Amino acid sequence: MSDLPLERWIKPEVLAQPAYEVKTTDHRIKLNQNESPWDWPRELKAEVLKRLEATAWNRYPGLIPQRLKEKLAAGLSVLPEQVVVGKGSNEVLQALAQVTLRPGDTLCTLSPTFAVYRLLGEQQQALVSTSPLNADFQVDAEDLLARSKEARLTILCSPNSPTGSLVPTELIEQAARQAQGLVVVDEAYVDFSGISALPLLEQHPNLIVTRTFSKAFALAGFRLGYAAMHPQLAQQVQKGLLPFNIDAPSAAAAEVLLDHQDVVRERVTLIVQERDRLITRLGELPGVTVWPSRANFFLLATPLGAEKTFTRLAEAGILVRDVSGYPGCGNVVRVTVGAPEENEALYRAVRACL
Amino acid sequence: MSDLPLERWIKPEVLAQPAYEVKTTDHRIKLNQNESPWDWPRELKAEVLKRLEATAWNRYPGLIPQRLKEKLAAGLSVLPEQVVVGKGSNEVLQALAQVTLRPGDTLCTLSPTFAVYRLLGEQQQALVSTSPLNADFQVDAEDLLARSKEARLTILCSPNSPTGSLVPTELIEQAARQAQGLVVVDEAYVDFSGISALPLLEQHPNLIVTRTFSKAFALAGFRLGYAAMHPQLAQQVQKGLLPFNIDAPSAAAAEVLLDHQDVVRERVTLIVQERDRLITRLGELPGVTVWPSRANFFLLATPLGAEKTFTRLAEAGILVRDVSGYPGCGNVVRVTVGAPEENEALYRAVRACL
Repeated sequence: MSDLPLERWIKPEVLAQPAYEVKTTDHRIKLNQNESPWDWPRELKAEVLKRLEATAWNRYPGLIPQRLKEKLAAGLSVLPEQVVVGKGSNEVLQALAQVTLRPGDTLCTLSPTFAVYRLLGEQQQALVSTSPLNADFQVDAEDLLARSKEARLTILCSPNSPTGSLVPTELIEQAARQAQGLVVVDEAYVDFSGISALPLLEQHPNLIVTRTFSKAFALAGFRLGYAAMHPQLAQQVQKGLLPFNIDAPSAAAAEVLLDHQDVVRERVTLIVQERDRLITRLGELPGVTVWPSRANFFLLATPLGAEKTFTRLAEAGILVRDVSGYPGCGNVVRVTVGAPEENEALYRAVRACL
Repeated sequence: MSDLPLERWIKPEVLAQPAYEVKTTDHRIKLNQNESPWDWPRELKAEVLKRLEATAWNRYPGLIPQRLKEKLAAGLSVLPEQVVVGKGSNEVLQALAQVTLRPGDTLCTLSPTFAVYRLLGEQQQALVSTSPLNADFQVDAEDLLARSKEARLTILCSPNSPTGSLVPTELIEQAARQAQGLVVVDEAYVDFSGISALPLLEQHPNLIVTRTFSKAFALAGFRLGYAAMHPQLAQQVQKGLLPFNIDAPSAAAAEVLLDHQDVVRERVTLIVQERDRLITRLGELPGVTVWPSRANFFLLATPLGAEKTFTRLAEAGILVRDVSGYPGCGNVVRVTVGAPEENEALYRAVRACL
């Protein structure tokens, strides 16, 4: 049935979108999704599983995960009414796009950046205005401010994926101050940079900060994220989320981990050390370029080009992300910082490529 | 900060929406959300928890839950490419609204019906055209066909919530045949009716059937649902879902339960018996009206009116759903069929009201 009249049913902007894909190969070492290299400690998993065993699976979770919201709010020093919880921060961003963007509205973001922002904007038939990073993957402040000023929604990832570069806090503040619309800072990697826009929230009611449990908190398998914003705005964004969106396992796991953040902090410290050491060592290899990063990943270029680098590392059992399709990333791959032995294997594999 | 310019940021249709609410009270017996009254058997929970323990929580789940899709497809006798999995069937419906509805498009549905359909349509700035059920909560075929014909998206819940009435299969087929747009049948309660639109899929590429694990499958706490449709349409609807939307716990639980459906079938048989017995007995009480139902719930009216009935049952420790705000439901409450002892307690509490 190849004559399906899809154009009669589906928005043209959606039809034009490619399906989301993540290129994968067999691998021993997984450095392609900016995950934590370490699973949760056995005793914390056991605590979550015990809670889950005692939960009635046949019953809906709360309309909103109230206890989790309170814990998150306390950690951020905001009110519970300022927190919106989603299945991954992506779900909060989807809700935001849904409640704000009308056809022809502008979504402003960086280029290159996380691919999902554009997809969400296009699905609301918004125009996507992208501010190009320079050759060092740094933000062009003037260009960004000009674009953001006119946008209904601006989404800035800081540290940015796939580049690892920061959007300076002063620039975020300027953008929030002058923008007619909302300004979102996606802080998925904030634990590795230590630099947050959260203190700006009080002064800027159009500012929103999103966070995730999928990276430093090592809970990618459960899909959980959240955002902080003005309480009145939070009420509206919540409408873009389905009722009962947070399942019992995610809420239980997050609550347990929030009581054991020492584990997270120790691991973050180690990842940051490993990142800086790895970037330095790789940068000393002839012909290799690595870009500085404030996240748990970095960009890498070898004389082989992106596709061959990806393939040669894959042959060594190491899976990285080929981001050469991203604007300005023609010859680079993105490498997640792993456990020390994984990083050592990566270093050797890159050296062996040359 | 009461002078927040929300109208500058948020769609007017969203601002106009009330927040989603479920009225609740302290209770011993929960008959308000059409859940299964029984948690999973201990050994099945243990099997899921064992799988979860062996899962790496730090790793993203698959972009799409491929193994689960295959199992679901086999159960429905469709191809895996025809299945789309969401966090609750609601998430699939949200994706559908997002990829199809442009401002001014028409969403057709019943009245009264499940409240989320309207919310999803309004958030896409669609017009919502509702076909009123008659006094016996049956569909007006002519009216529905006329409305559905012009709609970009039609969502029919069968058995319908909150009424328990069926949309006749022939009517669904007629609607699909003549509609320019897509026709969705939400079969959240199909296990209790045994009547499905699934056999119509092959002849009608614009037809979509959604199902949930939250009702008969007793997995409301995990939030999981799915839909079956033409493979080419499924590709497009998938774009409206976020990548990695199905977390590891939900996929694990669903896979285990699909291997043990005898448990579900036995329980469904008992609920259907209880439903029919309870409707008969309550209908014999003086002044009480109960409507026939093909679902795991039914509508009930007493001489007290809805609010007082809700309150008096709440005083007896029984939580039901006050649906008096739904069109045509001025004096009724919705009662979920529970376990036999719960149903007996409900019967006595209703009798004591009179």
